[in-house]
Amino acid sequence: MAGSKFGEIFQITTWGESHGKALGVVIDGCPAELSLCEDDIQKYLNRRRPGTSQFATKRTESDSVQILSGVFEGKTTGCPISLIVFNEDQRSADYSEIAQTYRPGHADFCYDAKYGVRDYRGGGRSSARETLARVAAGTVALKILEELGVSVAAYTKAIGDVCIDDSKISLSERFNNPLCMPNAEAATRAEALLNRVMAEGDSVGGVVECVLEGTPKGIGEPVFNKLDAALASAIMSVNAVKGIEFGSGFKSAALLGSQNNDHMRYDEHLTLQKPTNHAGGIYGGIADGSPIVFRAAIKPTPSISRPQNTVNATGENVEISTKGRHDPVIAPRAVVVIEAMAALVLVDYIFMGMTSKMDGIKRFFEGERQAAL
Amino acid sequence: MAGSKFGEIFQITTWGESHGKALGVVIDGCPAELSLCEDDIQKYLNRRRPGTSQFATKRTESDSVQILSGVFEGKTTGCPISLIVFNEDQRSADYSEIAQTYRPGHADFCYDAKYGVRDYRGGGRSSARETLARVAAGTVALKILEELGVSVAAYTKAIGDVCIDDSKISLSERFNNPLCMPNAEAATRAEALLNRVMAEGDSVGGVVECVLEGTPKGIGEPVFNKLDAALASAIMSVNAVKGIEFGSGFKSAALLGSQNNDHMRYDEHLTLQKPTNHAGGIYGGIADGSPIVFRAAIKPTPSISRPQNTVNATGENVEISTKGRHDPVIAPRAVVVIEAMAALVLVDYIFMGMTSKMDGIKRFFEGERQAAL
Amino acid sequence: MAGSKFGEIFQITTWGESHGKALGVVIDGCPAELSLCEDDIQKYLNRRRPGTSQFATKRTESDSVQILSGVFEGKTTGCPISLIVFNEDQRSADYSEIAQTYRPGHADFCYDAKYGVRDYRGGGRSSARETLARVAAGTVALKILEELGVSVAAYTKAIGDVCIDDSKISLSERFNNPLCMPNAEAATRAEALLNRVMAEGDSVGGVVECVLEGTPKGIGEPVFNKLDAALASAIMSVNAVKGIEFGSGFKSAALLGSQNNDHMRYDEHLTLQKPTNHAGGIYGGIADGSPIVFRAAIKPTPSISRPQNTVNATGENVEISTKGRHDPVIAPRAVVVIEAMAALVLVDYIFMGMTSKMDGIKRFFEGERQAAL
Amino acid sequence: MAGSKFGEIFQITTWGESHGKALGVVIDGCPAELSLCEDDIQKYLNRRRPGTSQFATKRTESDSVQILSGVFEGKTTGCPISLIVFNEDQRSADYSEIAQTYRPGHADFCYDAKYGVRDYRGGGRSSARETLARVAAGTVALKILEELGVSVAAYTKAIGDVCIDDSKISLSERFNNPLCMPNAEAATRAEALLNRVMAEGDSVGGVVECVLEGTPKGIGEPVFNKLDAALASAIMSVNAVKGIEFGSGFKSAALLGSQNNDHMRYDEHLTLQKPTNHAGGIYGGIADGSPIVFRAAIKPTPSISRPQNTVNATGENVEISTKGRHDPVIAPRAVVVIEAMAALVLVDYIFMGMTSKMDGIKRFFEGERQAAL
Repeated sequence: MAGSKFGEIFQITTWGESHGKALGVVIDGCPAELSLCEDDIQKYLNRRRPGTSQFATKRTESDSVQILSGVFEGKTTGCPISLIVFNEDQRSADYSEIAQTYRPGHADFCYDAKYGVRDYRGGGRSSARETLARVAAGTVALKILEELGVSVAAYTKAIGDVCIDDSKISLSERFNNPLCMPNAEAATRAEALLNRVMAEGDSVGGVVECVLEGTPKGIGEPVFNKLDAALASAIMSVNAVKGIEFGSGFKSAALLGSQNNDHMRYDEHLTLQKPTNHAGGIYGGIADGSPIVFRAAIKPTPSISRPQNTVNATGENVEISTKGRHDPVIAPRAVVVIEAMAALVLVDYIFMGMTSKMDGIKRFFEGERQAAL
Repeated sequence: MAGSKFGEIFQITTWGESHGKALGVVIDGCPAELSLCEDDIQKYLNRRRPGTSQFATKRTESDSVQILSGVFEGKTTGCPISLIVFNEDQRSADYSEIAQTYRPGHADFCYDAKYGVRDYRGGGRSSARETLARVAAGTVALKILEELGVSVAAYTKAIGDVCIDDSKISLSERFNNPLCMPNAEAATRAEALLNRVMAEGDSVGGVVECVLEGTPKGIGEPVFNKLDAALASAIMSVNAVKGIEFGSGFKSAALLGSQNNDHMRYDEHLTLQKPTNHAGGIYGGIADGSPIVFRAAIKPTPSISRPQNTVNATGENVEISTKGRHDPVIAPRAVVVIEAMAALVLVDYIFMGMTSKMDGIKRFFEGERQAAL
Repeated sequence: MAGSKFGEIFQITTWGESHGKALGVVIDGCPAELSLCEDDIQKYLNRRRPGTSQFATKRTESDSVQILSGVFEGKTTGCPISLIVFNEDQRSADYSEIAQTYRPGHADFCYDAKYGVRDYRGGGRSSARETLARVAAGTVALKILEELGVSVAAYTKAIGDVCIDDSKISLSERFNNPLCMPNAEAATRAEALLNRVMAEGDSVGGVVECVLEGTPKGIGEPVFNKLDAALASAIMSVNAVKGIEFGSGFKSAALLGSQNNDHMRYDEHLTLQKPTNHAGGIYGGIADGSPIVFRAAIKPTPSISRPQNTVNATGENVEISTKGRHDPVIAPRAVVVIEAMAALVLVDYIFMGMTSKMDGIKRFFEGERQAAL
Repeated sequence: MAGSKFGEIFQITTWGESHGKALGVVIDGCPAELSLCEDDIQKYLNRRRPGTSQFATKRTESDSVQILSGVFEGKTTGCPISLIVFNEDQRSADYSEIAQTYRPGHADFCYDAKYGVRDYRGGGRSSARETLARVAAGTVALKILEELGVSVAAYTKAIGDVCIDDSKISLSERFNNPLCMPNAEAATRAEALLNRVMAEGDSVGGVVECVLEGTPKGIGEPVFNKLDAALASAIMSVNAVKGIEFGSGFKSAALLGSQNNDHMRYDEHLTLQKPTNHAGGIYGGIADGSPIVFRAAIKPTPSISRPQNTVNATGENVEISTKGRHDPVIAPRAVVVIEAMAALVLVDYIFMGMTSKMDGIKRFFEGERQAAL
């Protein structure tokens, strides 16, 4: 319960601090027989790596991942997969002045309240550098989803007041700009906004949208473990996320039932088709097989160089202006983290879904007996 | 994992269908020595009871709760508390025609996809009647919070386009109208809206806001089990909720860091004071002791009497117009459910928080030794 | 964690006290499409019912079970199954004198130490009457195992010094005597022993042995969740069990490796055959497909009418001689409870085993797609 | 559920294979403010290190542990503690011949059945080398117990037919011989036995006994999570353990109630005293504060150099005689592993026990408020 474990069947436990020796994750419950090598994971880690554009922190880290266990001769063995990334560019000196002072918008005050002691270097465990381990684990989940025909794609939908209309989203475009925006024109406007914001020592918020396609219908659990509830928890757990909505989300609060219901039709293959997707692909916590769509609100980076009122650990009211190397916007680097978290949830729920029907269970064991012959 | 269990230390398991014999909940992990009687619970159940206003379903149920175990001579014993409510007004005949037809906006299609069989009577397990059991259990959590000085208050913030401004919220007002709105004038406008909507055989969405006060600072877990992540999952699991946001939520996505950061000051008692609460009381997943504030988007009731396109279990495209007894708006009856879910999360997290520091643990056992003498 | 929940995928939560209104269990995670009716469960409850022989407590209870949810038109729906048995013959007056006095060998002192309050009537929650709910749930697990070709059979192997040799066990014989012994001659000797013991106001211990056949090879998890570790926990959790051993168990501690290793051979169908089963069917926590065999040591009933030294809740040293209606031996009535617990573990582990290999997972989803057409 | 996670509040996840790059463990849920350094852990790892006597495998490993996270300036921070030990003396060549052949008494066949692929080098994940990570984590638990006044001591009670009588146990003696026997004369006889067994290329079993003192009364959970059930699972999960018993254990099966019940008396400090401890300190799953005593049966090392019948992965019946470096007896090296597992259970249960009473919970939060001033 302590917080660094995630998942039920496909379980991960992450560890490590921003300026400690290393960060890592242990995956327990990954099926055997999955092809896996370090390059598979590195590819995704590179997407969240710092120092890759003018709009990201200048910290330079290669973020090179090593597989320490659970893979033998290029295949997973079903045993725990331990992944590790050593920190290279810690520069703890940068942070010594905040050892005693609580940064506004950060978790410093809360960690001290909870634990009494705190690794203040770069935010310690509360730093977004922790999401590196989520991405490493999420990559393995994404590989499993790929084998099962499920795809996960997130992108920056908005930065500040630059928001991309649904009709103007071009998924392939998102890899062409450092902001991960699926529209070139919007990306250009957002870059201009960021340059202004950075010049003022400020930061700005954004929205990340994520689309999951190919989820088998019937995946999800009822009541408390609804698929959307699980995704909400997973996404809200990402640093700086302040809200999540599915399908029409908060807009549906102002709609009529006749506007918000998704009508249903079978096509000639008896596959369900819906002219609208206000629900975002989930009803009663269970996927109907159509695309699952959600959006996360990402607050502006709390580290800004403008002076702010705050308090310190010795009971004084003081002023702070955060130095160090910071992202002026969090959303673009959160994109791959949100993909990772969505994939971790989905793999877990797909595995859970295998025991919902006696017929399916019996078919499975009969199939295994046949395969063993 | 199957979905009807909630919580880690304070665990509940709910059961029962809309038109089955009964619904209930088992609470495992409630501390001993808490005063508890059926009236304590009934009071809250009455707040979500159907048939109490023109804006709620006409189904008549007394929703009388019985305590079957775990309470002895007026006190909890630490053993599982089993609560049961028998159904009285099932009228299954009303629903026979939808045995084969999937209602738009409902979970019918998804339950069939997942389970192969389905108790179609009144939506079976997917009916919002299931939330009765959550409220029963939540009441026990609320009693514990009361003993610890923590309060939970939710209300209807918006119905359709009638939205109450923050400055016009009067908490005591919410019990004076059937819509649970903390502003009399807004309630009157919303009633007029609902009368129009009902006349057209339609329904409308809404927003519920919830405020938790008195949470000890330091409550919450890092990384995956952030307090806001847990609340998000709990609230998203309530029927018809399509989004959740904390503090400034989605608005913060368009703000600058200098606008969104909450400055901090100590008052003369060294208690933390903040002029703003954009964060909604939680940083890095951990409460700082200020009010926790969140909002949930509630979709319009999917059951409407207007005809809609849909499909059935035998592979046909058909038309449906839902009959039966339905709420024209869900938000007001969801208010007490959201309070219950928030309380369940908070009790669990307060209990989890007891082991975060060796000093606190040692103080606890020393205190117990003293108390035993 | 509070103690009344068991299992991961096939989860049960039991509730109820010896002299409360009722006892029950909620099963969450039972697959849909399983045939289930009250008679299925009653059959097993009748095997542990009190008052059925001179060697069991005289309390008269019909132990009639009702299914309150989760079954529709004779099939499970995948939703929680709530089972309830109302108490009929409570006679709380019998127990009033022990409200303040702690019975030797019972949990009275420990419950007061833990909870501060205690339902003393008949032992409250610590009474073996609680196992009724385990048997009810276990019956559902046994039905699932039956569908998968797995059988579970337990019996009384020893009562006091009357122990049945392995070569003399005749499974069918065990239903022919009230002691559940699989050998008529041993049963006769044990009955004579019990008559002597009862005449002296005393009780006696015993050993229950259990054999599981048909477990698919490969079921079990490594390291901490070994199948034998899970069975050990489940069986040790049954009232009065003081030890458990697998295969040669404690005898293997005195053997040589060359004596204790089970040699392996394939038969003509490439099925594994072993001339011995010292391991009891499990290696490294994983079943090899041969019979799983374990034994549980059951202590003598602690309630005896002979006077004993003890203490009370007000700090005095006193003497007690337990009155009331008690079994002179626990083992025979524990037999069906041990079968139930073994079945609960096995179903859960069989379900867990479905995600150990990518090939199996892919075959499953391909099979489901085919079946849906 | 996959098997490498252990514990609820104090959770550990172990990883690593016998001949992989490294082994390690992540501890999540360790309270902050505990003094911890690498030497604390190394001390215990040295007790299970191979190559330290003629009766242990000749593999040479320094088993040097590194703390990678969760400790800052000599204190735990409440964040995950990642511990790692790199393998040094893998010599995989030794094992290439068993890549296809299943060793009798080992998990080789079962791992292949479960996972399809297998890291055969030195037994991979099923090797007892995995217990290194348990000891590393257990050390942290032992440090917490020490702060709370609880002690854990295990020792070799028997090797083959050399068994130490209860009256002849001298705890301090156990560190004076490589067999961890608390009696010098028995140790000498056991060494002679082992020399004979080794000369014959054989191995032998043993019994480990463990005593926990100072557990606060009232620790333990009812029904399924009984403290003895949890210990049974933890101990059974240790490689080669085939049985566990508490107090009189299997002997109690042949006793009368009047012989087996522990009488109770208060001493002048109102502390509970019992002339006997047949129960081993636990009633109804809850500790009464007296010593907790259990014994584990350890099978003989299955790796022996004598030829044995077995099967291989390609469907053939073959003969094997295990080469490589093996312990002739497992029990002595299991002693510290059993202490570690017992400590992990006990810490977790002590933490769980903090929420059993409202009074204790209220005292805790009042104490925290006072301490914060």
